[in-house]
Amino acid sequence: MFIDDTIAAIATAPGEGGIGIIRISGERSLQVAQEIFKSMSGKQIEEYKTRTLIYGNIIDNENVIDEVLVAYMKGPNSYTAEDVIEINCHGGFISVKKILELILSKDVRLAEKGEFTKRAFLNGRIDLSQAEAIIDVIKSKTDKAHEIAQTQLEGTLSNKIRELRMNVTELLAHVEVAIDYPEEDIEHITYKTLKDKAEILRDEIKKLYDTAESGKIFRDGLKTVIVGKPNVGKSSLLNSILGENRAIVTDIPGTTRDVIEEFVNIKGIPLKIVDTAGIRETDDIVEKIGVKKSRESLSTADLVIAVLDSSRKLSEEDFEILENLDKKKAILILNKVDLNQKIEEEKILQYVDNDSIIRISALNNEGIEILQNKIEDLVYNGEVKNSSDLVITNSRHKDALNKAYKSINDAIDAINQNKPFDFIEVDLKNIWDYLGYINGDTVTEDLLDSIFENFCIGK
Amino acid sequence: MFIDDTIAAIATAPGEGGIGIIRISGERSLQVAQEIFKSMSGKQIEEYKTRTLIYGNIIDNENVIDEVLVAYMKGPNSYTAEDVIEINCHGGFISVKKILELILSKDVRLAEKGEFTKRAFLNGRIDLSQAEAIIDVIKSKTDKAHEIAQTQLEGTLSNKIRELRMNVTELLAHVEVAIDYPEEDIEHITYKTLKDKAEILRDEIKKLYDTAESGKIFRDGLKTVIVGKPNVGKSSLLNSILGENRAIVTDIPGTTRDVIEEFVNIKGIPLKIVDTAGIRETDDIVEKIGVKKSRESLSTADLVIAVLDSSRKLSEEDFEILENLDKKKAILILNKVDLNQKIEEEKILQYVDNDSIIRISALNNEGIEILQNKIEDLVYNGEVKNSSDLVITNSRHKDALNKAYKSINDAIDAINQNKPFDFIEVDLKNIWDYLGYINGDTVTEDLLDSIFENFCIGK
Repeated sequence: MFIDDTIAAIATAPGEGGIGIIRISGERSLQVAQEIFKSMSGKQIEEYKTRTLIYGNIIDNENVIDEVLVAYMKGPNSYTAEDVIEINCHGGFISVKKILELILSKDVRLAEKGEFTKRAFLNGRIDLSQAEAIIDVIKSKTDKAHEIAQTQLEGTLSNKIRELRMNVTELLAHVEVAIDYPEEDIEHITYKTLKDKAEILRDEIKKLYDTAESGKIFRDGLKTVIVGKPNVGKSSLLNSILGENRAIVTDIPGTTRDVIEEFVNIKGIPLKIVDTAGIRETDDIVEKIGVKKSRESLSTADLVIAVLDSSRKLSEEDFEILENLDKKKAILILNKVDLNQKIEEEKILQYVDNDSIIRISALNNEGIEILQNKIEDLVYNGEVKNSSDLVITNSRHKDALNKAYKSINDAIDAINQNKPFDFIEVDLKNIWDYLGYINGDTVTEDLLDSIFENFCIGK
Repeated sequence: MFIDDTIAAIATAPGEGGIGIIRISGERSLQVAQEIFKSMSGKQIEEYKTRTLIYGNIIDNENVIDEVLVAYMKGPNSYTAEDVIEINCHGGFISVKKILELILSKDVRLAEKGEFTKRAFLNGRIDLSQAEAIIDVIKSKTDKAHEIAQTQLEGTLSNKIRELRMNVTELLAHVEVAIDYPEEDIEHITYKTLKDKAEILRDEIKKLYDTAESGKIFRDGLKTVIVGKPNVGKSSLLNSILGENRAIVTDIPGTTRDVIEEFVNIKGIPLKIVDTAGIRETDDIVEKIGVKKSRESLSTADLVIAVLDSSRKLSEEDFEILENLDKKKAILILNKVDLNQKIEEEKILQYVDNDSIIRISALNNEGIEILQNKIEDLVYNGEVKNSSDLVITNSRHKDALNKAYKSINDAIDAINQNKPFDFIEVDLKNIWDYLGYINGDTVTEDLLDSIFENFCIGK
C-alpha cells in the first residue's frame, strides 16, 4: 500500500451554501496550489506560515475562477498526515466543480470514497475504528448517535481493543512458556492461570459484544414499518411522531429521487421510517404493496407499528395484519380513543402482549409520549443508558467480537480438557487476529477497500 | 443600520460531506470561540497569528462535541469586515447543529438569510451589485452563468455604474452652472453640450439594458415546458437532452419534497425544466394537468418544446397543443423520424415557422445536437457570445436601468425643447438615483431586506 499519487475532491456537502471546500492531499499538493492560486498580497503560499488562510484568486490562464481562501497544511500535521491544501471557495455547484476540474487537469487524481481518511489510517494517524467513527460522526442522525461515534473517534474503542489484545498476549506468553518447558508442575499451574485469565477475557468480550444489539441501532437507525388498513390514521400518527423532531430527509442530489430515507428522532434513537411516501400519499400501505410485499417488509423491519381503528370492529384486513406480527418487535396502536370504542380487545390479545398495546388519539396528540417511551424501552431493553459507556455500533466490529468470543470459548474448552498447549495457542492467536480486525492491525487490503467504499467522496 | 450584535450560522450546504463550517461574525466572536474551543497545543486563539487554522476540540462542559479547526479573522480583513471566527468541523447534520446550538447559547443570534453578506455591504467592503453577485455565483447552474456572476463579483458592473454616474454628475455640473449663471450665450452652449453628452449616456444605458434579456436567463434559467400527448416520446427526449449533461436537482433537505427544480445545461444555458415529474411518471403532461393548466404553463414558460409523433397522423390533441403555441418561443419536435412518416407537415406550418421545426429520433439520439443549437440561437438571438462582456442578469438591475433609460429620454426631450434647466436637473438626479439602486448607494433599508432574503442562511 505505497501511496505516491496526489488526490483531490470536494470536501463539503453538495448544494447551495456559503462556502465550499476542495481538498488536495499528497506530495504535489503545494505545487498544484502554486500553479492555480494567486494571493492578493502577491506573496507565495510558502512565504506564509503553514495553516494560514491566504486570501486570493484561483486562476486558470489569467481568468479568475473564484475568490478563495487557501491553507497549506504540511504533513504529518494534517488530516491525511500528508501535505494537504484546502481551498475555501464560494458554495454551490459550479465554483467547487470548476476548481476541482482545474486541479484534476494538473495530473492529480480524483480521490476515491473515503480515500483521505484511508490515507490517515494507512499513514498511522488514526486506527481503523477511529476511521470508521469519522464516517459515523458524519452520518449520525441524532445527538446520541453522534456522541457514541465521537467517543469512538476519540479512541475509546481503540484503547479497549488494545487492552484486550494485551491480555491475549499475556495468555500467549503463558502458553509459550508451557510449550517451551514441558514440565508437569508448570503445566498444572499454567492450566489454572490460563483458565482464570481466559474467563475474565471472555467476560470482557461478551460485555462489549452485548452492547452491539442496541448500538447498531444508533448507527444505522431502527428500521420501522407502520402498517394498517386505509383510514386508520397512519398518516396523522406519523405527523404526531414527527412533531417538532422534524425528520432529516437524506436525499443527496445526483442520486435517484426514489431512494428517500426519512429519519425520526425518538429520544435520541434514530427511527428509519420505511416507505413514508406510501404512508403519506395513499394512507394505504397494505393495499398498495400487497400482502406478500407487506409480509416481507414486516419481517425485515426492526420495529413494526401496527395501527388499528379502535372505533370500529376488527375487519378481515386487521386480522391479516395481526397474524403477520412478530410479538418481539411489534407495537400495536389503538388509534381514535377519542371516539366510541368498538374494537374487540380480547381478540387482539391472541396476537400481541398486553403491554405492547398503546392507546392513542393521533388527532388530539394523546398517547404519543407513551409510544415514544415504549420505543425507548424496546431499544434499550433496560440497558445502556449512559452514552459515555463504550458501545459497539458497527456490525463489522460486532462480527469480529463474535468470532473472538467463539474462539475464547474454544480456548476455555480446550483448557478445561487439558488439551495440548499448541491447540490453545491456535485459539488465542485467532482471538488476537479477530480483535485486530477492529482497530485494523490485522486487516486485509480487500476488507479495507470495502470499508472505505461506504464513506462519501471528499472524506 | 447600526450593527452591534454577534451572529452565527452554518456556512456549508446541509448534507453529508467531509467538512462543515460554522461562521460567527461580530464583536463577541473571539470571546465566544474562547469559551467553547480548546486547542490541542494548549495555547489560546489570540496567541496565534490571525487567519491560522488551529487544531483542537469544541467543548461543552468538559464534553468533546467535535474535533475541529478554528480560524480567527480579525476585522476589517474578513468576509464581513467584522471580527469573524470560522469553525471547520466534521460534515453531516449533527456536528454543525450541535456546535451552532452551543454558540447560540452564548448570547449570539442566528444570522438571517444573507446577513453575513449584508454586513460586508453595510461595512463597505463590497457594493450591492457585488453582494448580489455572490449569491449568483453560489446559485449558478452552468459554467457560463458562473463566469458572468464572477465578473460581476469582481466589480465589473460596479465600475460601469460608477462611470455612468460620473457622467451624470458631469451633466449635472453643466446644468448647475447654467442655473447659477443664467446668461443666454452660456445657455445655448449648455443645451448643445447637454444634448451630446446625454445621448452618449442614453446609448450606454440602452446597451447595458439590452444585455438583460439573455442575461436574466443565465441567472434564473430558461423556464422550459415540454408538451405532447402520451407516448410521443417526451420522456426519452428528456433523457436524450440530459445525456451526459446530468441535471442538477435542487432539493435542499428540510424543504418540501414536492418543489424539485431540474436544470439541464444546454451549451452553458441553464434550462429549468418544469414538471419533469409529470413527464417522467405519466408521460402525459397535457392529460395530467388538464388543458387549462397546460395553457397556463405554456404562457408562463420562456421556451415551449412541443413534441409530435411523426409516424402518426395529427390528432385532435395535437391540434389543441399547436393552437396554444406562441411562435416566438416554441420549438416543434417531430419525433420518431426513424419510422414511416405519416404526419401532415403542411398543416403544422399554420402554427409554427418552418425553421422552428426539428426532426429527431429520441430513440436513436438523432437530431439532439440540432435541437441544442436551436435553443442556443433562441437565447443568444445572435448576440452576447463573449462571457467577459458585461451582462445584466438581475431583474432588479434591469428594472433600475429601465427607469434610468426613461429618465434620460425625458431629459433629452426636455433639452430638445429648451425647457428650463431645473426640469432637466430633476431628470438627471433621478438617473443618478436609479443607477445608485444597482450598486446600493441610494437603496432603502426595506429594499435591502428584500434583496438579502433571497440569500441562503450562512452567507
